[in-house]
Amino acid sequence: MDYMKFTGDTLANEISSLVKSYEGYKAMGLSLNMARGKPSPEQLDLSMGMLDCLTSKDVLNASDGTDCRNYGGFDGIPECKEIFAKLLGVETDDVFVGGNSSLNMMFDTISTFMTSPLYEDTEPWLNVQNRKFLCPVPGYDRHFGITGYFGFKMIPVPMNEDGPDMNIVERLVAEDDTIKGIWCVPKYSNPTGITYSDDVVRRFAALRPAAKDFRIMWDNAYCVHDVTDTPDNLLNLMDECKKYGNEDLPIMFCSTSKISFSGSGVAALATDKHNMKVLRGKYNYQTIGYDKVNMLRHVKFFGGYEGLLDHMKKHKAILKPKFETVLSKLESELSGLGIASWTRPNGGYFVSVNVYNGTAKRVVELCKNAGVTLTNAGATFPYGDPDDSNIRIAPSFPSVEELSLAMDIFCVCVRLAAAERLV
Amino acid sequence: MDYMKFTGDTLANEISSLVKSYEGYKAMGLSLNMARGKPSPEQLDLSMGMLDCLTSKDVLNASDGTDCRNYGGFDGIPECKEIFAKLLGVETDDVFVGGNSSLNMMFDTISTFMTSPLYEDTEPWLNVQNRKFLCPVPGYDRHFGITGYFGFKMIPVPMNEDGPDMNIVERLVAEDDTIKGIWCVPKYSNPTGITYSDDVVRRFAALRPAAKDFRIMWDNAYCVHDVTDTPDNLLNLMDECKKYGNEDLPIMFCSTSKISFSGSGVAALATDKHNMKVLRGKYNYQTIGYDKVNMLRHVKFFGGYEGLLDHMKKHKAILKPKFETVLSKLESELSGLGIASWTRPNGGYFVSVNVYNGTAKRVVELCKNAGVTLTNAGATFPYGDPDDSNIRIAPSFPSVEELSLAMDIFCVCVRLAAAERLV
Repeated sequence: MDYMKFTGDTLANEISSLVKSYEGYKAMGLSLNMARGKPSPEQLDLSMGMLDCLTSKDVLNASDGTDCRNYGGFDGIPECKEIFAKLLGVETDDVFVGGNSSLNMMFDTISTFMTSPLYEDTEPWLNVQNRKFLCPVPGYDRHFGITGYFGFKMIPVPMNEDGPDMNIVERLVAEDDTIKGIWCVPKYSNPTGITYSDDVVRRFAALRPAAKDFRIMWDNAYCVHDVTDTPDNLLNLMDECKKYGNEDLPIMFCSTSKISFSGSGVAALATDKHNMKVLRGKYNYQTIGYDKVNMLRHVKFFGGYEGLLDHMKKHKAILKPKFETVLSKLESELSGLGIASWTRPNGGYFVSVNVYNGTAKRVVELCKNAGVTLTNAGATFPYGDPDDSNIRIAPSFPSVEELSLAMDIFCVCVRLAAAERLV
Repeated sequence: MDYMKFTGDTLANEISSLVKSYEGYKAMGLSLNMARGKPSPEQLDLSMGMLDCLTSKDVLNASDGTDCRNYGGFDGIPECKEIFAKLLGVETDDVFVGGNSSLNMMFDTISTFMTSPLYEDTEPWLNVQNRKFLCPVPGYDRHFGITGYFGFKMIPVPMNEDGPDMNIVERLVAEDDTIKGIWCVPKYSNPTGITYSDDVVRRFAALRPAAKDFRIMWDNAYCVHDVTDTPDNLLNLMDECKKYGNEDLPIMFCSTSKISFSGSGVAALATDKHNMKVLRGKYNYQTIGYDKVNMLRHVKFFGGYEGLLDHMKKHKAILKPKFETVLSKLESELSGLGIASWTRPNGGYFVSVNVYNGTAKRVVELCKNAGVTLTNAGATFPYGDPDDSNIRIAPSFPSVEELSLAMDIFCVCVRLAAAERLV
């Protein structure tokens, strides 16, 4: 049943049959959402104990004696820094704990370098004409939003199954000193779900950029976010960088947004002493310190890094059947048709589907009209998807039953859009 | 006993007597801190109920149905915006609720304008050569820190008893379009504790700056922070600005840092639709939304604006005797000597003392050596105090007993430093 081999007649029959299914779904008046990587209420319920673990009976002091209720604690309380150091695979001293969002910390990092040069002999990025940023595609729309806001020309770099195409990355950064950085989600990448191979991580660590102030924005959002029993392993970029004297290249980010409460988690960054000096030089005027009571709440609720890992098993138990539902629907409804391919991630928050070229927007539109909201087609590319093919599916928020129905509709839409196109 | 009328002999006797007192205090090996405007543990205890008002039994939805645990709620939950609208005297729609710190929001605001022009025909401030900012003095060191970090030349403007010297402000902003803003703490100013008069507020509202993108940074940090039973009243700047078509001039800030927990409060800004569009245009890439569980916690604990005002009465009950202790010590130990003057604020967190010219650093040093920490002399001026006279006293953190002792030592140091100078 390869669509490419359909004749005019069989194609017409297929369309007529698909339209009938589609209209049936449409008549159901559904409202299902697979657009954003939001935890489900069931996942958020896992952390409700956070509201009970600190009470008015407790003394709210950090391990170093800091009163968490008062000002101070510039870079975070020690026990919280320790957890993030383990999450990111760095020394505790290399961690800065921020507010409720790693995205906010990434924005602030780029913002810092826009006005404060990274070295005495480099320029603030605002003064760099034709400044550019590398954007592996498909990638995370909110990353592209930040560099777009700050006026970078964004250069798409194809993602392979083991990470960004490093031949292209190496060539581009070596020849153009107006390329100031690259966005990476190295583990369970958004949206493809792949994890960078050891070879890719080593090639990142060994980069020789023309720009002395080129930086790797290493957004390790899904560092402990497995959804199968065969998790991926990510090589430690900082350790590799040290082997090449490149420890000033990466700035690493993560948060508890998809571990505890998404809007009320704790975020952190880690980087080498040079970058940290520049960033602390800014934080010194930006903040007296972030929310230490919330840091303490997290430490107390998880009881440390091991407890946090145990907590992630509960998330996995909820997410695993959802990912399985998406993948089994794709398999049963779309495999062998020659019109779609997809990834099978071991973790993260997304499944990336490439539908028949030129039909992604149409699929999203068809789904929307049948009550199924998807991320806008093209959002995973800085300036839209030239092939109009990539769609990001976020299985986390709906229930398994909703997902199952939403995926039935999605698959009908993928087939219908392809058939329409082939007519 | 006017020091100015002392002869050589009486001065020598005075010094000898003061040194004896001073050495006595020094021998006590004290450690007292009047440096920063930090709430005392007793004040923080007032808000411990915040840790009990949301539990795992509660549904954490905002009034508009938003699940506060999840992503979203870009500009804050409605019921929290309402409280801030009342605190700042603006419409709820003009409020943006941020993270845990208004200082952070002020930094981010200046940071935004450094790279994003306020109007199509103005420049990002980074590109303005010789950019300048007006700094009423004595003022708040952390304000000066922000504009210093961003490379502004800071122009001190003398503070009078009714606010900044508006003759100077009006003249400077009218003649120099590289002056981009002014820092103001309009109520219970840091450190003098004075409140801007109606006339001063009206003159701010009527400013005609040469720079189209001149902005008033209106840090209303102490808007409900009375310490006496005769509170000051601040005219509503936004209402006045509207009368002059100047509603794009002010950006107003406040927070609950000195209402609930200092490190774990909620902050907000308010401004007109034009500035808000620029700022939201930035926030749109900087955040998905700040900590809504903490916003909900605050709303539930205070029960609304009126409840928050009631809560402030408890703070006042703790702070009032502390301010009285400071003032009565100054009165009994320093009045009539001709070597010191001070303010008698009705609110805020500071008493500002002008000691004998050329001795502020010496007083701070003497105090330090006797175990009493004060804010560094000169910190209340962007480039140091030309008269070496102003010292900021923060009475909030120590107990009344500690304060009493610390003020005894302070007064001896003020007299000793003056006497040394007069020899």
